[in-house]
Amino acid sequence: MAGDGTDQRALQYEQTLMYGRYTQELGVYAKEEAARLREEAAYRRLVTERSRSLDLLEYDKSRCAKCRICTVHCQKFLISRVGEDWIFLILLGLVMALVSWVMDFCIALCLQAQKWMYGGLDSNVVLQYLAWVTYPVVLISFSAGFTHIVAPQAAGSGIPEMKTILRGVVLKEYLTLKTFVAKCIGLTCALGSGMPLGKEGPFVHVASLCAALLSKFMSLFGGIYENESRNIEMLAAACAVGVGCCFAAPIGGVLFSIEVTSTFFAVRNYWRGFFAATFSAFIFRVLAVWNRDEETITALFKTRFRLDFPFDLQELPAFAVIGIASGFGGALFVYLNRLIVQFIRKQKAINKFLMKKRLLYPALVTLLISTLTFPPGFGQFMAGQLTQKESLVTLLDNRTWAKQGIAEEFEYIGHAAAWKHPQANVFITLVIFIVMKFWMSALATTIPVPCGAFMPVFVIGAAFGRLVGESMAAWFPEGIHSDGVVYSIVPGGYAVVGAAALSGAVTHTVSTAVIVFELTGQISHILPIMIAVILANAVAQSLQPSIYDSIIRIKKLPYLPELGWGHHEKYNIRVEDIMVRDVRYITLNCTYRDLHDVLLTERLKTLALVESTESMILLGSIERSQLQALLSQQLGRPRRLEYLRQRAQSERKHASTVSTPSSEEGNHKTSHEVRFQISTEESTISPTRSVSPKPLKPALKRHSVVERDQDSGIALKSLFCAHPEAAAVEDPDVEDDMTMREIAEWEELQLDEQVNFNNCKIDPAPFQLVERTSLHKTHTIFSLLGLDHAYVTSIGRLIGVVSLRELRKAIEGSVTVKGVKVRPPLASFRDSGTSSSDAEVTELHKLWNRHTNLTLPQDHQPSDSDEKSQ
Amino acid sequence: MAGDGTDQRALQYEQTLMYGRYTQELGVYAKEEAARLREEAAYRRLVTERSRSLDLLEYDKSRCAKCRICTVHCQKFLISRVGEDWIFLILLGLVMALVSWVMDFCIALCLQAQKWMYGGLDSNVVLQYLAWVTYPVVLISFSAGFTHIVAPQAAGSGIPEMKTILRGVVLKEYLTLKTFVAKCIGLTCALGSGMPLGKEGPFVHVASLCAALLSKFMSLFGGIYENESRNIEMLAAACAVGVGCCFAAPIGGVLFSIEVTSTFFAVRNYWRGFFAATFSAFIFRVLAVWNRDEETITALFKTRFRLDFPFDLQELPAFAVIGIASGFGGALFVYLNRLIVQFIRKQKAINKFLMKKRLLYPALVTLLISTLTFPPGFGQFMAGQLTQKESLVTLLDNRTWAKQGIAEEFEYIGHAAAWKHPQANVFITLVIFIVMKFWMSALATTIPVPCGAFMPVFVIGAAFGRLVGESMAAWFPEGIHSDGVVYSIVPGGYAVVGAAALSGAVTHTVSTAVIVFELTGQISHILPIMIAVILANAVAQSLQPSIYDSIIRIKKLPYLPELGWGHHEKYNIRVEDIMVRDVRYITLNCTYRDLHDVLLTERLKTLALVESTESMILLGSIERSQLQALLSQQLGRPRRLEYLRQRAQSERKHASTVSTPSSEEGNHKTSHEVRFQISTEESTISPTRSVSPKPLKPALKRHSVVERDQDSGIALKSLFCAHPEAAAVEDPDVEDDMTMREIAEWEELQLDEQVNFNNCKIDPAPFQLVERTSLHKTHTIFSLLGLDHAYVTSIGRLIGVVSLRELRKAIEGSVTVKGVKVRPPLASFRDSGTSSSDAEVTELHKLWNRHTNLTLPQDHQPSDSDEKSQ
Repeated sequence: MAGDGTDQRALQYEQTLMYGRYTQELGVYAKEEAARLREEAAYRRLVTERSRSLDLLEYDKSRCAKCRICTVHCQKFLISRVGEDWIFLILLGLVMALVSWVMDFCIALCLQAQKWMYGGLDSNVVLQYLAWVTYPVVLISFSAGFTHIVAPQAAGSGIPEMKTILRGVVLKEYLTLKTFVAKCIGLTCALGSGMPLGKEGPFVHVASLCAALLSKFMSLFGGIYENESRNIEMLAAACAVGVGCCFAAPIGGVLFSIEVTSTFFAVRNYWRGFFAATFSAFIFRVLAVWNRDEETITALFKTRFRLDFPFDLQELPAFAVIGIASGFGGALFVYLNRLIVQFIRKQKAINKFLMKKRLLYPALVTLLISTLTFPPGFGQFMAGQLTQKESLVTLLDNRTWAKQGIAEEFEYIGHAAAWKHPQANVFITLVIFIVMKFWMSALATTIPVPCGAFMPVFVIGAAFGRLVGESMAAWFPEGIHSDGVVYSIVPGGYAVVGAAALSGAVTHTVSTAVIVFELTGQISHILPIMIAVILANAVAQSLQPSIYDSIIRIKKLPYLPELGWGHHEKYNIRVEDIMVRDVRYITLNCTYRDLHDVLLTERLKTLALVESTESMILLGSIERSQLQALLSQQLGRPRRLEYLRQRAQSERKHASTVSTPSSEEGNHKTSHEVRFQISTEESTISPTRSVSPKPLKPALKRHSVVERDQDSGIALKSLFCAHPEAAAVEDPDVEDDMTMREIAEWEELQLDEQVNFNNCKIDPAPFQLVERTSLHKTHTIFSLLGLDHAYVTSIGRLIGVVSLRELRKAIEGSVTVKGVKVRPPLASFRDSGTSSSDAEVTELHKLWNRHTNLTLPQDHQPSDSDEKSQ
Repeated sequence: MAGDGTDQRALQYEQTLMYGRYTQELGVYAKEEAARLREEAAYRRLVTERSRSLDLLEYDKSRCAKCRICTVHCQKFLISRVGEDWIFLILLGLVMALVSWVMDFCIALCLQAQKWMYGGLDSNVVLQYLAWVTYPVVLISFSAGFTHIVAPQAAGSGIPEMKTILRGVVLKEYLTLKTFVAKCIGLTCALGSGMPLGKEGPFVHVASLCAALLSKFMSLFGGIYENESRNIEMLAAACAVGVGCCFAAPIGGVLFSIEVTSTFFAVRNYWRGFFAATFSAFIFRVLAVWNRDEETITALFKTRFRLDFPFDLQELPAFAVIGIASGFGGALFVYLNRLIVQFIRKQKAINKFLMKKRLLYPALVTLLISTLTFPPGFGQFMAGQLTQKESLVTLLDNRTWAKQGIAEEFEYIGHAAAWKHPQANVFITLVIFIVMKFWMSALATTIPVPCGAFMPVFVIGAAFGRLVGESMAAWFPEGIHSDGVVYSIVPGGYAVVGAAALSGAVTHTVSTAVIVFELTGQISHILPIMIAVILANAVAQSLQPSIYDSIIRIKKLPYLPELGWGHHEKYNIRVEDIMVRDVRYITLNCTYRDLHDVLLTERLKTLALVESTESMILLGSIERSQLQALLSQQLGRPRRLEYLRQRAQSERKHASTVSTPSSEEGNHKTSHEVRFQISTEESTISPTRSVSPKPLKPALKRHSVVERDQDSGIALKSLFCAHPEAAAVEDPDVEDDMTMREIAEWEELQLDEQVNFNNCKIDPAPFQLVERTSLHKTHTIFSLLGLDHAYVTSIGRLIGVVSLRELRKAIEGSVTVKGVKVRPPLASFRDSGTSSSDAEVTELHKLWNRHTNLTLPQDHQPSDSDEKSQ
């Protein structure tokens, strides 16, 4: 199994115009890691001391002490309780519900303020326009600026990043308090502006932030919050809470978050999501009741369709049409969104200009959109005066708008009046609404503020469904059913179907269906919705990636594409077809020069450690940084000073007694001897000593004492880095008087020494595959375990390596976007009947070969085999 | 990665009284495996020939040939289409919908027949009683007998077995046509009898059977249906279809099947389940519409609760009480069920008697239950005349039964009248119903017929909810809400909550909530239901395993317990605490005697292969059966005859030329020489020859020709088994004239030879863990990859092994049923600050040590190191 540390890479955030980019900086990470390790050691010491003091207390028999013992015990009990998962989940749910409710309240206030300003200035259209336009421009600019200054990571949806994080990648500063503040305030302002933006993507991020911060806070009380696996489990639950408390949809939230963020889902984690999301949704709705907004707990966008005859069987084709059209629409939306980003990135001049004036792009986009929606202007043809929420409520209305073509007799109550226009009928209004909102939403989601695309798409889908429904109602005014009873068509039902289908198509999820049930509080249209959502998914998935995967590609986050809908080639491609055969490795008995060469030519993050070039038996993998540390330590100044001091000493000795000529060569040999000797006899405590030549100086001895004081081996490396300097400081008698040439010579000599791996952190069981493993299985294992590379071995021998890159290429190579399936090289050779045992036998022969070489010395004829092995 | 073959063990079904037991028979499996491999090779040959004939055709330029080419191409196209997943899923959904509908129809017929018989004999109570009782006894006995004769595997629920199968274990004959027939007919009869049995568990099994058979059928057309990973994916989808078309609940079906059968769920599989389940549910409901049972597609148990004010906030405590009580009830149900099984198993005398008269137990149980439900008898106090479906419909009624204590003025329409009794009020009827049905259901599900426990539990839960609801309605006749408007309490809503909670508690699932929404067609009670289900799960999971896990334990299926709700010790236990350190292994250069000893003392299914006892480098694992084959081949009669023939030949030669004295020792040496030589030079084709001594006989030569005809190496083993016998038959000049002593001597000599692993199937990359891997991670990996053992290695060296058994012990040891958490031995030593690099350094020293031994021969001082290694 790959060790815990392999995929702990922190990715640095790099701010670009619209979406940021993550780059890797190993140096920074290494520093942090060292700091973390030091802290851990310190913490552990603290804990030990605390428990020791507790033990001491129990010996003290005074009354005060008894009290204190009791207090300590109580404290311990409380802490152990606080550590329970369910307390954490309840807290998380509670906090998120409050955040969601407060945010909704603020957004509603902002929108009301805009309406009030706009309404108060109805005497002058120009002033009205200025008020209508300035308000969102200011809010969006503030949001963009605030986000940029406080935490640029907070911009955008957050779901793509959470997907990456749950895959095991560490994104730097993605889960900090700063980001939390930026996301919350930025999101409130952005949504308060009335732009077609959504709350649900960012809420996943906010919930994850909340979980991470809560976990940090709780770790002040107890120790278990430090565990990595647990944190990932909690983050998964937090994603569910995010969606759950945003829509008051616990079940849909859990399912949506699973579909959107996971590739493999641990069912044991299931209850966490349900528990937290339910609690959160409950509190969120209870707050509304307490605030007298609602009488009791009901759905957020409650519908009142008839229950006894929700739809006719013959309406199903219309629902299917909605599904298929939504599929195309969803794919188009994703494509459009990516196109806009790529267009602006490509135009270097524009890009440069906009990068300088960061707030210009958001302001321009907002200006354009709000101008077009200005109610007395073009907005009158697209219900521009309605907020997103109001539009949705009217679209889900259970009355029919267009009973006889242009419905004159129908009185539009409340907001529904906005859809009626004296010159244009409802159909035209709806079409204009759909078309305009479509590109507006695609454009608006590229603004670098915290925002999601789910809700805008949801509204567009509802409008599209309504359009189809109204058309059906106009076409069959008496309903379709023929058995005497008139069951008229319910266009609201079509709107629900359309909303679920389009949002499903854009996000590539099926669970939007469940979200819709929970949002509307009705499940009577379950079959039409399921059919439409599945069809929409089928169409959209075969055309475009999901909006989140699209953003992942744009942001260049480390990801692994999905295998897609049943491509059978996957079962026929083997690891041996895609693996890199020319693996760079280091051997146990390599010299520092080999190390140097490998580090120069190879750019991989980890290197394989094999027994020897002949045997190629894989022993483990070492991180690049570890090797760099080894090398710099061998060639570093402290070690050179040590060498000088020693030479001076031996010269002094030489001067006094004139004995045993120690050539460099001899010295070299001795050091070898010594190293083996030490590593054989003194096992655990002396690794730092083993490099230094024999006569141990007092300074070094003291260091090994220090080392024993440390109760863990983790700090070894930092100790090691620290001590040579100290030694140099404490040796005033040695001067660094070597010339450049001498240094170069000395370094050449040092490079010829054999590497000592004692202080090196080796992952002793990197993940291994066999060359016959299928691509399908490889993909499964990579995504299950969150690997980023795996070695391919054959009976212990290293024969290749597969990394995410190869895997990605293989998947994308065999399934291009256009649907042309390219067979991987070599794949065709295999179908004609070679089988696995064939390859195994071959490998076994090689092994035998090797075995003969290695073990025959203990056999009858050692001389013969020795000749072979040479 | 563990190879494909490691967990391909077929478990044999062993019929016991109530639940069968699975035992392992490796021999049978080995035979089947060989047959399968042979078939595969034959199939591949066929395909090759076919494509060859196609190539030939294209050269032929006649018109007829063109037509034929066209046909062949069309055929190819069709086949490739048929291979698509979605066609398979549609077919599966269609078939299952039909099966479900037909079965429901037959069950309804059976129940009607019983009612008719019972109703027609209302003149005489005794005759009526006889009719009432005989009918179910006959049906159940027939069902039990039929199942027992045709396929005993069909008895019981099927979900526990599917859970095991999806974990990667092969249960023998569990997915055959016979089982399908037995399950369908048995289930129809069992449910037609009116016993408190369910349809949903068996339907999961039926759907899986259907998928397996369909997959077999489809493989007649195309090749990809042979793939194992694909089959598992399809089985997972089939489980969803099973639940989906049983309740017409696609979403709930998918979620329930995931919760019940998986530990880790691949999200890429999600759409398959949704697609198939939706299609199936759709067809299932459309059939009802076409059959004029329904006007349009609606829910199965449609409720009509008011939408505007479904429940008051102050009713929530009552819902919570239902949840908690259901949790205890669910745990009690599981316990009771297990108790009954164990009681009857323990009573040896009863057990023996009942095993002989197989039909007696089902008949007795049925007699008892049907006597108690006899409507004119005790049944009148528990609505005994209602079928399960009718009871559920009445319980979910949206009217209140007990408006003023004993509701006189309320007219009981239809079946609801059954709940009214002149002497007893509704509360008493309900209590009796709940208590009686509770133990009856627990008892009835132990009958060895195809049956599930979900539906009975669901009904009991609904009754319990109704009871609480009616009590609340009696307590607050004017409703709780205080704002002027009277919203009376809806007891039907409580019934829905109770049903979801109790079934959730028994099965340990949350998705019963979704099933309930889909069954009733209303989602307005979502929050109370979620709260009750989560509370019920929390209580039940801390008291008892789920009913399916309980059955898994009773049946002794290979399983891995779940980690449970947040036990933090999991993160602190390491593999090194639980692993078996005394691993039995075989080395590359071991003798057959070593093999023999290991096979005698060790009972593991696979053995580790290491390089040598000194290095302990893990090279792979070999199955026990492979080793047995090696051994029996070395000591078998054919080889002895070969030896005799050869001796005779050499004696003949000796007689003619008198040269080169060949002692046994010399012969032995030569054979060694030869083996290495052959394995080095002739790589793939000659493995069968390499064992045989040098002078190749004509018979053997012909065999290697046969072998070349075979296009794959897979069949090697079976060939190998076949050929020596042939050789023996064709050598009439050699007689088996060895005495027992000679044979023993010869065998002793053979045992001293070194093992030749060339013909042995080695898994070259068995799964490896590191000693610092946490129990939590180990559990994750085991359940993710479906392992049953993993080797613990340290930098390539084998240091231990962990199997399912150790893991199970560790999990159960630290979380006993009573809630006392026992710390594993050694765990306490670790918290006080030892860290991973400590151990790594130690290991590295050992490695260095070893490295010194092995590689120094090529260094400066070979003599020194050779001395060390001796």
